[in-house]
Amino acid sequence: MRFGLALSVQHPPEDAQDLRFREHVEQVALARAVGFDSVWASQHYLSSPFTYFQPIPTLARIAAEADGMALGTGCLLLPLHHPVEVAEQIATLDVISGGRVIFGVGLGYRDVENEAFGQDPRERVGRLVEGLEVIERLWSGEPVTYAGRHFQLREVRISMPPLQRPRPPVWLAANSDAGVRRAARLGDAWLMNPHATLPTLERQLALFRETRRDAGKPPAGEVPMTKECYVAPDAAAALAEARPFLQSKYRAYQRWEQDKALPPGEGFALPFEELARDRFIIGDPRMVGDEIARYRERLGVTTITLRLQWPGLEQAKVLRSIRLLGEQVLPRFR
Amino acid sequence: MRFGLALSVQHPPEDAQDLRFREHVEQVALARAVGFDSVWASQHYLSSPFTYFQPIPTLARIAAEADGMALGTGCLLLPLHHPVEVAEQIATLDVISGGRVIFGVGLGYRDVENEAFGQDPRERVGRLVEGLEVIERLWSGEPVTYAGRHFQLREVRISMPPLQRPRPPVWLAANSDAGVRRAARLGDAWLMNPHATLPTLERQLALFRETRRDAGKPPAGEVPMTKECYVAPDAAAALAEARPFLQSKYRAYQRWEQDKALPPGEGFALPFEELARDRFIIGDPRMVGDEIARYRERLGVTTITLRLQWPGLEQAKVLRSIRLLGEQVLPRFR
Repeated sequence: MRFGLALSVQHPPEDAQDLRFREHVEQVALARAVGFDSVWASQHYLSSPFTYFQPIPTLARIAAEADGMALGTGCLLLPLHHPVEVAEQIATLDVISGGRVIFGVGLGYRDVENEAFGQDPRERVGRLVEGLEVIERLWSGEPVTYAGRHFQLREVRISMPPLQRPRPPVWLAANSDAGVRRAARLGDAWLMNPHATLPTLERQLALFRETRRDAGKPPAGEVPMTKECYVAPDAAAALAEARPFLQSKYRAYQRWEQDKALPPGEGFALPFEELARDRFIIGDPRMVGDEIARYRERLGVTTITLRLQWPGLEQAKVLRSIRLLGEQVLPRFR
Repeated sequence: MRFGLALSVQHPPEDAQDLRFREHVEQVALARAVGFDSVWASQHYLSSPFTYFQPIPTLARIAAEADGMALGTGCLLLPLHHPVEVAEQIATLDVISGGRVIFGVGLGYRDVENEAFGQDPRERVGRLVEGLEVIERLWSGEPVTYAGRHFQLREVRISMPPLQRPRPPVWLAANSDAGVRRAARLGDAWLMNPHATLPTLERQLALFRETRRDAGKPPAGEVPMTKECYVAPDAAAALAEARPFLQSKYRAYQRWEQDKALPPGEGFALPFEELARDRFIIGDPRMVGDEIARYRERLGVTTITLRLQWPGLEQAKVLRSIRLLGEQVLPRFR
């Protein structure tokens, strides 16, 4: 089982953002030293009430400290972008990182982003589907002609294909059942979101596998999952320390209407204990390891990417989680 | 006078691109050590016959080796992009680099790029002008409402303003007289292109200054120029060694129709000696220093950014140019 570090690229706007970025660099250096396999950065724009570091420059800078680690976009909001732009940016990042990019993409769900970029939300799926097709064809390095509804190309060739041949892995993030089926048809893997509970993930993973089977595709080689996680020597202290930051983060998600993108029956308007159950991984190293083992057993997870920070959480606590995971949890899974 | 290193982000496609990127990192580390002040990366897409590293991930990765140096986009093709995208990417880069970004932008001139991105070339100027206005307003950190022809925003706030207050410097690249006048009105400086000869630059700089005066703007604080440069201990060897690479590069520019973007009377269809005269800076350290001094005297250049490599030129020669400049040329200008 492989472990990823999901950078929390959002911070309170009153923080010194350059200091926060240097802390991310320090987090990655420590994560690498204690055995993490990958680093992840996600994408949002106009991200009030918190700040946001864009993932491509973030991962490119981080690459200097992440030798040997995979770099994942988790996820890039593909419908907002032109596929020529994304194909070239990710190819450059793949070359910079020595061929270690995992290309994670998603639909996005925030009206403010679609509206600002002048995109009709009803065209998101079409732009995602066409965008992925164009990117994969450009990444072949051959001239591409494409007559889509959203994108048209005439005999153009990417400046430089990615270093990975035939291409970097494509992992699709999805919350809804329709998104999970799309991930099954179009991606190399479904990037399981951190918002759904274990029973929902179990049900959707069955749907993912069934859809691949029906489409005549082989089982996905990777079963990746992102989770919120906090580790402390004492379990009660872990819960008490993580709680205010996760509560504030999930209140912001509600204002962002992230919960509207979830399947029926899921939502964030819950008491913290209920929100945390089957959803967050919080505790002492033994409990956290048990919980990760449960996800591996129930879902067959191959890569678990842990977000260990939320806006405002201090660096010392993040580094402690990384260290405790590296020293006391990762060895159980190797 | 300040010195910049313009990375040659294009290479023959048969080269190992990851090795070429590591060589850029090495170039920057040496340039910093010998006293260069800034690093620059430019932008093109679908860049056949050579490869191309995208500037934002390139500069972000380079930032790890460029502590204390400015990082310049020289230049970003603004009309191809949405200003929310660019404002956020550059703000992230500015925070990553500790507030050292110089935001260089240009119109672009290649039909293949405009067509692939679905942009009408006749709208480039409008998109550049609106784009700059939107970016500067977003960088204020205040909510922005904008009703333009190309872009519409309703009460949106950037995720994170740049670290530099009020904003990073905006340098406009321009080849044509109309572009120079636009740079005078909209930019903090005109980024003089490497393609025009000294007499043309002299004439256009007078136009730039006159336009600023007429617009009631103060004189630009910076007079930046980019030049092709090659330094060797022996002047004749310098010319012989640089020649095939510059010839090949300028033949590619002709195929790209870069010369069509130049003012009347300028062009690249010339014997090499004529192409080089008043345009390239090639020679031994004394000659190169004399030539740079001539540009400073005639144009009042404050920052000269030197491109020391073209597709195929080997790393040892590039490093030698950087070292000779640092040891024998830069001290004359300090």
